[in-house]
This record gives sequence, structure tokens and C-alpha cells, in this order.
Amino acid sequence: MLKIERIGVSVDSDLLEQFDRQIEQKGYANRSQAIGDLIREHLAEEQLKNPASEAVAGIFLVYDHHTTGLNRKLNEMQHNQFLHVIASTHIHLDHHNCLEVIILKGKSGQIKKLADSLACVKGVKNSRVNLMSHHQSGSE
Amino acid sequence: MLKIERIGVSVDSDLLEQFDRQIEQKGYANRSQAIGDLIREHLAEEQLKNPASEAVAGIFLVYDHHTTGLNRKLNEMQHNQFLHVIASTHIHLDHHNCLEVIILKGKSGQIKKLADSLACVKGVKNSRVNLMSHHQSGSE
Amino acid sequence: MLKIERIGVSVDSDLLEQFDRQIEQKGYANRSQAIGDLIREHLAEEQLKNPASEAVAGIFLVYDHHTTGLNRKLNEMQHNQFLHVIASTHIHLDHHNCLEVIILKGKSGQIKKLADSLACVKGVKNSRVNLMSHHQSGSE
Amino acid sequence: MLKIERIGVSVDSDLLEQFDRQIEQKGYANRSQAIGDLIREHLAEEQLKNPASEAVAGIFLVYDHHTTGLNRKLNEMQHNQFLHVIASTHIHLDHHNCLEVIILKGKSGQIKKLADSLACVKGVKNSRVNLMSHHQSGSE
Repeated sequence: MLKIERIGVSVDSDLLEQFDRQIEQKGYANRSQAIGDLIREHLAEEQLKNPASEAVAGIFLVYDHHTTGLNRKLNEMQHNQFLHVIASTHIHLDHHNCLEVIILKGKSGQIKKLADSLACVKGVKNSRVNLMSHHQSGSE
Repeated sequence: MLKIERIGVSVDSDLLEQFDRQIEQKGYANRSQAIGDLIREHLAEEQLKNPASEAVAGIFLVYDHHTTGLNRKLNEMQHNQFLHVIASTHIHLDHHNCLEVIILKGKSGQIKKLADSLACVKGVKNSRVNLMSHHQSGSE
Repeated sequence: MLKIERIGVSVDSDLLEQFDRQIEQKGYANRSQAIGDLIREHLAEEQLKNPASEAVAGIFLVYDHHTTGLNRKLNEMQHNQFLHVIASTHIHLDHHNCLEVIILKGKSGQIKKLADSLACVKGVKNSRVNLMSHHQSGSE
Repeated sequence: MLKIERIGVSVDSDLLEQFDRQIEQKGYANRSQAIGDLIREHLAEEQLKNPASEAVAGIFLVYDHHTTGLNRKLNEMQHNQFLHVIASTHIHLDHHNCLEVIILKGKSGQIKKLADSLACVKGVKNSRVNLMSHHQSGSE
């Protein structure tokens, strides 16, 4: 069950006026929601700095169809005891290129290390890793 | 067909020594591959600064199962003439939370705007957008 | 004169508990102050995305003592009608290297352009630009 | 004395063409210089991830003239054995606000901790820390 607490916050009027304008423009329903998002975002960033923190991540790889070393690396990954692959999606971008999106859970440090090693595989042209703190978002 | 060019580059010896150590540690096969990746990465970042540049993106949303406004927004998105959703993956994270990964193509400015508007939907706890320059990776 | 407003915010209890722990650890006096900082930071980031927004910036340059092209560029900069240099500090780092810290005001887009052009000067080894929204911080 | 080494690099022709266009636009004299900067930048970023690495940093603080707690913190800082303040510049921004730019050397982890603690002082409205790897730039 979701427990909500009501707190009082003192904010400078000028700052508040600017903030209200911006959240309206972005489409937030109210201040509580926007401030909740700022807090959550901030906590998640702090947490992900710790390599031992649990994270959900997406690894994006754009690579050449003919890349042979990648499948082997991806297979090894399945046997990494610190990482758990949840899903992966393979997309045909154009005649030359594929996009692989791998969604996984594990320690943020381990995930970054894996992403680094995938980025080095010959034929991988572009790689990104996207970390989200899992625990923080465990309850709203 | 992939055309490779051989160029000569003058680099400070100390810098080169440190670079060699680091690319070996990361697992690169050779300098050409590592330098190619640095160039590609740099060009992609420059390109994505332009809101009119074409990008492939992943939008990650962690949200509460009971979020009702999200589906409506996601549906609207399908009718956005500037964006083309390629695939989306829905993952059950735990009792409370889902992860939706939406992979799409479009102008980077439009994608950021969409990601902003999804982040504001009540019940969306965490959101990330991951942009990759598509054109740059069109050939290696 | 500083006007403070008191607002009520509804936040999830779990999230609040984590936030309280973190702000205590960081050394904030109270929630209002920490939330005020999150809001200010967020507004500043949004504002700086607009190249026409006014900013205060620090440009850091580490360069070789014998760099000859830099002084010329720095002089040109004084005549840029869109930028106003407030102060600059020159530091002798070691036998080979200087650090120049230039503090200036101007449109954020113009400042980035200048920083880019200084980074390219032969002998400049490292450069960073640090933008802060001036207006936002105009009153607390 | 500066030692330069000449290396051969194989790069995809398309990528090279785009890169050449971009470095010309930015104002680089040649490829060697631009690639040297990419390598240096990359090494510096990797190095700064290690909290024990030596860095030169600038801490920027925008604060209210009447902030009383800041001077005390700044004094304490002088007695921190891990940090060495090289210079600091005080700027009068407007009727309400000052900018303090503190340039210091030390371990990157220690510098970040200090910057965090300064950001929390009541009256500090905006703070930024800018880390540059010192060692990397020690010779070009």
C-alpha cells in the first residue's frame, strides 16, 4: 500500500513562480508530483554512483550485421552470476545495421563493466548504457 | 561496401602510452578501432545537439501498474507524424512496478519532447531517454 | 527583500525517509533548503538549454606555457559584443603547464561557441566550460 | 622535452569525411591535434572516475552576500590536509549575489565531497564543481 505524507516546505516566492510556470509547461498535474520526481531523480543518481547498488539497465548496441564476436560475448554474459538478463530486442535498422536492446538487472558497477566490454567488440559502432535505480522506484 | 582509409597521426608519446594501456584493459583489438570509436562517439554527440537530427532512441519508463494516463499518452504517440515507434517491450519488475522500453526513430528534438511529456504522467516514477545518432552509425 | 512562501507537498513516505537520510548525510539544515536547491538546479538546467539565456560562466584552460595562439584568441574575445569578461586568473601548475580561469557573462550559446574555439587552439590540452544560470540565482 | 610519435590509423572513409568537416568547422589546424584532444579527454574522464586520482578543480558558488556560514566552511577547508587551495576569486554579481571561484588541487573524491558540503550551506544558491585531470595534462 502506498503511504503519502504531507509536509510543509518554505520556498522563495520568485523561485516558486518560475517553477510553477515550468511544471505547467511540462504538463505536471501539481507541485507535489513534480517535487516528488525531483527527489526521486536525485536519490537515484546518488545511489547509482555506488557500484554495488542494484540497478535495472538497458544496453543499446548499434552493430554491423556481420559482427561475429558479439554473439559470443552476449552468450558469456548469460553466465555472469552478477547479472540477470530480463529481455532483449533485436531490430533491423537498415541494410547494414542492427540495434540490440538488452534489458538486465544487476549491480551498477557490473553493468557498466559489461557495457564497456560490449562497446569494444569489433563491429559495434555505437553503444549506450542506461542505468535506473531499481530500489528507489520500488514504491511510490 | 566498407571503405577503409589509412591515415597518419602525430601523438605525444606519453599520451599514447597511457592510451595503449587503457584500450588493452578495456579489451580493444587495436588503436584504429579505439580511435574510430572516439571519433564516432564525438560526431554523434555533436549531431544530437541539433534538434532536427535523426536519431534512434530508447525511452525507459518505470511506472506503477495502475497508472491509467500512460496508455492514452502512448497511444497518442503512435499518431505523431514525426516519430516512428519500432518496438516496445513491457517488463514486470515486481509487485508494484513495470518497465516499458519504447524504441523509436525520429528527430532528436521531438523525441526529447515526448520523453518529457511521458515523465510527467502520474504514476511514472523514473524515466530516461537514450538518443543515438542513426546516420553516423549508418556505415563503418 | 526576500519573500518566502510556505507550501504543502504530498510525498510518498518511503521516498521521504530516504531523502531525509540523504540530506542529513550531506549536511543540509532542513528539507526546505534541500528542496529549494533541487528546484533551483532544475530550473537552471532547463534555462541553460536555451542558447539565448543569460549565464555566468567559468572557462578553464590547461595549456602549454609556449602556446602562442591563445593570447590572440583571448584578446579577440574582449571585443566580442555578446560577452563580458569579469575576471581572469592565471595559475602556474607546473614546469610545463598553466591554468587560465576566465569568468564571464553572456548568452549561453555564445559562451559555448567561444569555449569550443579556445579548446582548438594548439597547445590547449584540456578545457572545460561551466555554465550557471545567472537570472535564477538573482534572488533566493 | 615533448616527444611526438607518428602512428598509422585505419578509419572508415565516411566517418573520416564527416570528422574532417567537423574539425574544420571547429577550427582545428589538423587531424592529429583533434584526435590528440579526443584521446586526452577520454583518458581524463576515465581517470576522474577514480576518487583517488589527482585533479585540479574549480568550485563555483553563487551565494547571498549575507551568507554567514560560508566563510567558516571556507576556512575549515584551508586546514584539510587532502586539499590545496591555489587561488580564489570573489566577484560581485549584483546587489544580492556574489560568485566565489575557488581553484584547488587534490584527490577528486575529496574535492567532490567538499563541493557537496559547500552546496549545502544556507545562502548558497548555485554551485558547480569542475574537475580536470592534472596528470594527463602534465605533458603534451
